[in-house]
Amino acid sequence: MVDITHKSSTLRTAIAQAVVEVSKQETIKAIQEGKVPKGDVFEMSRAAGLLGVKKTADLLPDCHPLPIEYTDIHYEIDRLQIRILITVKTHYKTGVEVEAMHGASIVALNMYDMLKPIDKGVEIRNIKLLKKTGGKSDIDNL
Amino acid sequence: MVDITHKSSTLRTAIAQAVVEVSKQETIKAIQEGKVPKGDVFEMSRAAGLLGVKKTADLLPDCHPLPIEYTDIHYEIDRLQIRILITVKTHYKTGVEVEAMHGASIVALNMYDMLKPIDKGVEIRNIKLLKKTGGKSDIDNL
Amino acid sequence: MVDITHKSSTLRTAIAQAVVEVSKQETIKAIQEGKVPKGDVFEMSRAAGLLGVKKTADLLPDCHPLPIEYTDIHYEIDRLQIRILITVKTHYKTGVEVEAMHGASIVALNMYDMLKPIDKGVEIRNIKLLKKTGGKSDIDNL
Amino acid sequence: MVDITHKSSTLRTAIAQAVVEVSKQETIKAIQEGKVPKGDVFEMSRAAGLLGVKKTADLLPDCHPLPIEYTDIHYEIDRLQIRILITVKTHYKTGVEVEAMHGASIVALNMYDMLKPIDKGVEIRNIKLLKKTGGKSDIDNL
Amino acid sequence: MVDITHKSSTLRTAIAQAVVEVSKQETIKAIQEGKVPKGDVFEMSRAAGLLGVKKTADLLPDCHPLPIEYTDIHYEIDRLQIRILITVKTHYKTGVEVEAMHGASIVALNMYDMLKPIDKGVEIRNIKLLKKTGGKSDIDNL
Amino acid sequence: MVDITHKSSTLRTAIAQAVVEVSKQETIKAIQEGKVPKGDVFEMSRAAGLLGVKKTADLLPDCHPLPIEYTDIHYEIDRLQIRILITVKTHYKTGVEVEAMHGASIVALNMYDMLKPIDKGVEIRNIKLLKKTGGKSDIDNL
Repeated sequence: MVDITHKSSTLRTAIAQAVVEVSKQETIKAIQEGKVPKGDVFEMSRAAGLLGVKKTADLLPDCHPLPIEYTDIHYEIDRLQIRILITVKTHYKTGVEVEAMHGASIVALNMYDMLKPIDKGVEIRNIKLLKKTGGKSDIDNL
Repeated sequence: MVDITHKSSTLRTAIAQAVVEVSKQETIKAIQEGKVPKGDVFEMSRAAGLLGVKKTADLLPDCHPLPIEYTDIHYEIDRLQIRILITVKTHYKTGVEVEAMHGASIVALNMYDMLKPIDKGVEIRNIKLLKKTGGKSDIDNL
Repeated sequence: MVDITHKSSTLRTAIAQAVVEVSKQETIKAIQEGKVPKGDVFEMSRAAGLLGVKKTADLLPDCHPLPIEYTDIHYEIDRLQIRILITVKTHYKTGVEVEAMHGASIVALNMYDMLKPIDKGVEIRNIKLLKKTGGKSDIDNL
Repeated sequence: MVDITHKSSTLRTAIAQAVVEVSKQETIKAIQEGKVPKGDVFEMSRAAGLLGVKKTADLLPDCHPLPIEYTDIHYEIDRLQIRILITVKTHYKTGVEVEAMHGASIVALNMYDMLKPIDKGVEIRNIKLLKKTGGKSDIDNL
Repeated sequence: MVDITHKSSTLRTAIAQAVVEVSKQETIKAIQEGKVPKGDVFEMSRAAGLLGVKKTADLLPDCHPLPIEYTDIHYEIDRLQIRILITVKTHYKTGVEVEAMHGASIVALNMYDMLKPIDKGVEIRNIKLLKKTGGKSDIDNL
Repeated sequence: MVDITHKSSTLRTAIAQAVVEVSKQETIKAIQEGKVPKGDVFEMSRAAGLLGVKKTADLLPDCHPLPIEYTDIHYEIDRLQIRILITVKTHYKTGVEVEAMHGASIVALNMYDMLKPIDKGVEIRNIKLLKKTGGKSDIDNL
C-alpha cells in the first residue's frame, strides 16, 4: 500500500462512466415505464452504487479506506445504450478514482442482474475514468 | 427478489470475461516481469477476485446468497489487452452468472488500481457472460 | 449458538412489520409524489432492506447464517403511518424470523435517513413478528 | 447523497433509544440472573450494538461513512420494558443520529434473538432520537 | 479455489485453540471480577468470536463460504494463560478447521484489545487445530 | 468504547509479528518455488492481510474505525518458521496496534489455509506487538 502519511488533504473529485448495452428496444422501454419485474432499475441500482462506492476499500487490497463526502449517479439513454455517470468527491490525501469506477461497475452489474430475466443479451462496456481533479495531475476526458 | 423456494438444486456453471486495456507495451512488460511497485498484479487481483465472487450478494440487492463451490481465474494477454476469464461453479437453485461477472469486474478494477501509478490510460472493456450451464436455458458464446 | 446439526431442513416463512410514523401530511405527499430530495424513498429503502435481510447473521452473534430464497417488501400508508411488511422464505434447519425483523428495521431506518432533511419528527414503532411457519410451533398474528 | 464537501467538522452527539418489551416477568429475571441459555444478554447485545453503530453506512445507501469516536450503551429496566439508551459522538461534517438509531435497533434485535427461545412475545417499540447536538439545529427530547 | 462440486456433505467438526498470555496476575483477577473498564472480557470476546467464525470466507480468498450450524467458545485459565477452546460444526462438503482457527484468533485479538489499557504485555500464542472429524482424514490432538 | 473526542491526531505507527511454523522443509521449498497448488502463498496472503487490516473495526466491538495510511507486509524465513512482519501507519487519535496484530493474524491464517493441503502440521505462534510510536507511551521490542 502506498504510504500517504506525509500527504495533505485536498478536495478530490472523480467522474467515471460505465455503459450497459441491452439487446432490444423493449428492454429500454420496460425500464422507462417501470415494468421490469424486479423493480425500478434506476433507483435500485443507484442504491447499490451508493453502497458500492463506500465498499471499494473492502474489495481492493491496496486501496486506502477514505471518507466519501458526495456521490451522484446519473443515467443517459442513447438507443440501446445506458450510460452511467458517477461523481465522487471528498477531502483526502489520495483520490477517489477507483471508488468512482467501482461504483459505476456495481450500478452496471445491478442493472445486468435486474434485466437478466427479460433480456439475455446485456453487456457491460467501457468502465473508465472521465475526469479527476485535486491530485498531482488532473485528467479531463469529459 | 425472485422466489426460488420451489426450485431444485442443479450443478451451475458460469464463465465470464472482463478485458483490461493498457495504453503502452511497458505496462504489460512490468506485469510479466513482476516490476509493478504495488506487487504481483495477477496474484493480488486473483485474491481480490476470489473474495469478490463471494461478496456478490452483499452488493446486489436482488441477488440470492449462495454457496460457491469453485472459482478459477485465468489471464490471457493479447498485445495491449489482458483478458480475464473467470469460472464459477456451484450446486444451487439459481445460477452463478452474476457472481462470475462481479468477480471479473473486481479482478479488472484491482488491476486498474495497481497499474494506475505506472499507466494513466487503463480502461476496462466488455464485461460479459461467455457461458452458462445448469439452468432452464444454456448460453455458450465461448 | 444453538446446535442445529441434527435438524432437518423445512420450508420456513416469516412475516414481520415495522411502522414508520412521520409528523406531518406533507411528508407522506412528498414520498408519494417522488419529491423527497434524496430520491425514491420506497425503492431505495427496498434495496436497503433486501441487502439488510442477507446481512442479519453478520450483525447478530448467535444468528445462524442461512440461504435466503425469497424476500418481499411491501408498504401500506395509513394517515401518518407507513407500515412496512416484509416476507422472508427459505428451506433451512432454523427459521427466518430475525432476518425478517432485521430487514424491516433496515427499511424503516433508511426511510428515517431519507426523510430526516424534510421531517424532524420521524419515529420507528412496533417492529414485530406477524407470522411464522415451518418450525416446531407456528405463530400467526396477521 | 448530500454534498458535505463545503462543511466543517464539529463535535456531534446523538442519543437514541429503543424499547424492548418482553411478555412476562420471568424473562426479565432470567436476564438479570444470567440464566438465558444463549449467554449474557446485556453484554452480548452491547457487543453487537458497538459493531452495528460502525456498520451503519454499509447498510444505508445515503449515509456518509464517518469515524466513530465514542459509543456508550446503557440499559434501564421498567417492569416488562427494557429501554436501551445509546450515545454516539464524533467530530465530523454531518451528524451521528442515524448511527445511534441503527445501534439501538441492533441491540434490540439481538435481545430479541437471544430471548426468542424463552419468550415468544418479545416486541421492539419506539426507536427514536432523544437528543442531538453539534449541527445546524439541536434536538433535546431527553 | 479447490473444486468441491463432486463432494458429498458430511458432518464436520473442528476444535481449535488460541492461548492469550497476560503479564500479571492482576489482569486475570480483573477479568474474573468483571473490573476491566471496557466490559465483560469473556462475553464480549465470545460475541466477537461467534461473528468472526461466520466471516472467515470474507477474509480468506480460497476459503469456501459455508453454513455454520454450531459454534461454542469456552475459556480455561491456567495461571497467566487463558486458553480459548472453540468448536465449530456443520454439514458440508469441506471442513470447518479454518473457521475454528479464525474464530479462536478473533477471540484472542478481542481479549488483547480489551486488556490493552490495563496490561501492556499481552501476547497471543499457539493458534492451532486440536481436532477435526468428518473429512478424508481425522486429526485428534486433544 | 473509549471516548477519544478530546484527543488530537498524531502520526501512529505499529509493527506486529506472527510466526507460522510448518512441519517439514518441503513446505518451505514449495512456497519458495511457487509450487503450492492454491497459488503464490506470499502474494495471496499479502492481499488478505492488506484487506484484513482495514476490517479490524468490523470484527472487534471496542475498536475505533480509523483511516489506514500505510500497510507493509514482509516475510522472513528461518528454517521451519516464517515470520510475518506487518507495519501499519496513520494519523489519528488512537493507535494502530490492534490493526497490525489483526493483519498479522489474517496473513498467518491465510498461509495456514493455503498450506493445509500439503502440510497437516502447520501452527501459528506468537502474534505480538513489536513496536508502537505516537501515543502516550511508546513500545519498542524490535
